[in-house]
Amino acid sequence: CHHICKLPGRVMGIRLLHFSSVVIFVLLLVAGALMALLPNIKDDKMPNLRREPKSQSQSALDSFTLVMQTYNRTDLLLKLLNHYQAIPHLHKVVVVWNNVGEKTPEEMWNSLGPHPVPVVFKVQIVNRMRNRLQIFPELETKAVLMMDDDTLISAYDLAFAFSVWQQFPDQIVGFVPRKHVSTSSGIYSYGSFELQTPGFGNGDQYSMVLIGAAFFHSGYLELFQKQPDAVHTLIDETQNCDDIVMNFLVAKHTGKPSGVFVKPVDIRNLEKETNSGYSGMWHRAEHLLQRSYCLNKLVNIYNSMPLKYSNIMISQFGFPNYANHKNKM
Amino acid sequence: CHHICKLPGRVMGIRLLHFSSVVIFVLLLVAGALMALLPNIKDDKMPNLRREPKSQSQSALDSFTLVMQTYNRTDLLLKLLNHYQAIPHLHKVVVVWNNVGEKTPEEMWNSLGPHPVPVVFKVQIVNRMRNRLQIFPELETKAVLMMDDDTLISAYDLAFAFSVWQQFPDQIVGFVPRKHVSTSSGIYSYGSFELQTPGFGNGDQYSMVLIGAAFFHSGYLELFQKQPDAVHTLIDETQNCDDIVMNFLVAKHTGKPSGVFVKPVDIRNLEKETNSGYSGMWHRAEHLLQRSYCLNKLVNIYNSMPLKYSNIMISQFGFPNYANHKNKM
Repeated sequence: CHHICKLPGRVMGIRLLHFSSVVIFVLLLVAGALMALLPNIKDDKMPNLRREPKSQSQSALDSFTLVMQTYNRTDLLLKLLNHYQAIPHLHKVVVVWNNVGEKTPEEMWNSLGPHPVPVVFKVQIVNRMRNRLQIFPELETKAVLMMDDDTLISAYDLAFAFSVWQQFPDQIVGFVPRKHVSTSSGIYSYGSFELQTPGFGNGDQYSMVLIGAAFFHSGYLELFQKQPDAVHTLIDETQNCDDIVMNFLVAKHTGKPSGVFVKPVDIRNLEKETNSGYSGMWHRAEHLLQRSYCLNKLVNIYNSMPLKYSNIMISQFGFPNYANHKNKM
Repeated sequence: CHHICKLPGRVMGIRLLHFSSVVIFVLLLVAGALMALLPNIKDDKMPNLRREPKSQSQSALDSFTLVMQTYNRTDLLLKLLNHYQAIPHLHKVVVVWNNVGEKTPEEMWNSLGPHPVPVVFKVQIVNRMRNRLQIFPELETKAVLMMDDDTLISAYDLAFAFSVWQQFPDQIVGFVPRKHVSTSSGIYSYGSFELQTPGFGNGDQYSMVLIGAAFFHSGYLELFQKQPDAVHTLIDETQNCDDIVMNFLVAKHTGKPSGVFVKPVDIRNLEKETNSGYSGMWHRAEHLLQRSYCLNKLVNIYNSMPLKYSNIMISQFGFPNYANHKNKM
């Protein structure tokens, strides 16, 4: 009996041991796999675990490129980059680095990554106002958002204005309206709401939307490059008026008012917040006179005044106040 | 000699007499003509002397026809006619007289002439909401301004909105925005700003502009007449929803939001000022529920929901406040 009796016991014992080993082995495998999936927590750094960057896959029609030229206000630039990098529908940022001979903050930028969108620093060899109107190869979208390096506009305003641009893609859709006036001598003058619009009935009119806070079609950059040398020379001589030129181009091209004005809810000028002491070109004594000068020079070069007036002011229905359209009836 | 001498003298005398007669006759003619041109001053009446009516020569593109349907509020109608008859760019007024069996105020109207524009009273044989959407032969302009008979909008608002319509001629450009909302059950509901817009980010949206205070292209009247009987029946059954139908038509036709909302500066409801005691259809208990009902009925008839949302709100730049666009920067 003990011959037969001993056999099954030993077999079962071995089988049990076998089974247990397999179970333990599988459990170890599972535990190992789980540990591999856990994030690596290293000090205060963000986990390496990240979703695939959405911005690269955004359609060229549904997103825009921010082009921001900067000179002598890197502290403002960096403040603004932190803000603008998170705007919905932003595809990429192109910083036009007019600080000739100075290193860009690219290294610092990268060390503070990751960032929501790519930012490229385009180093310029001369400090020119019209550097920002070059056709950058990094620009992949149809829409350009051009911003001055001292202007902060809320994400709400930008998201809305982008949606408006998509409805008026051949015009400059932006936040800063200006106008030209014609005088009895036939000489044009440049100004804002303090100038009376000659002969236009009620209210005011604008004939330009400044490109330092505006969306426009990237095709207009190509059109700009094709303009007569005299136009580029005018901008270089004055270090001014590139936006007046762009408005001339758009008006000539479309036969419509060059711009569509979107009234901003929250727009701020950060000039006073810079440590550089530099306060922007528009503070120069001759700035406005130059712009009037440019108007007449351009009319001369193009042999026409293509700018057209508009009095359309666009706001966002029901924002920020959900009943901002109500009237007492 | 006296033979020869007398001849010339007599001839000259006769010629002189002849000449004088002619001169006097001509002078009398001139005097008569001048007197005919002088105004007839009779008591306190306006001079009969009038310039050729400008409105008749206004181009069909530069002017609009006011179509105002009226029921049981003739006192308001007459108040409003005095106001609207003087609106710039108005070509003619068509009053749709829904007071079946009652004489129009045409006689009184004529006795209080002259008027800036022609006003025609179209007598209706049944009191129907959709009477105002007929193709009146008197309608010569491309643009229709449709107004309810209790709504007073300032001339400034209308002149501006007309200029906006000229820039968006295939849409309903008006002062009263509404929306539809989609619910989880798939049933639509009708409302205004008190309803939350499902899933649209910031602010509100509108998907209809009511035709009781709006400009639209007269071609849409023809399109309306061509709609399925079920649509006309729906309007007749509810005595409501003609404007919802028009918004459906425009949205289907253009593939765009049916309306463009212009924020009115001065819009007033004169309902409370009528002596008739009649206070308008929208006070009926079932009015809003009917409109939700119409939405779903129309989606059923057309087998689609063509209405599109928009959040564009248009105001007049620099009016009434010449700096109404300023922000502190």
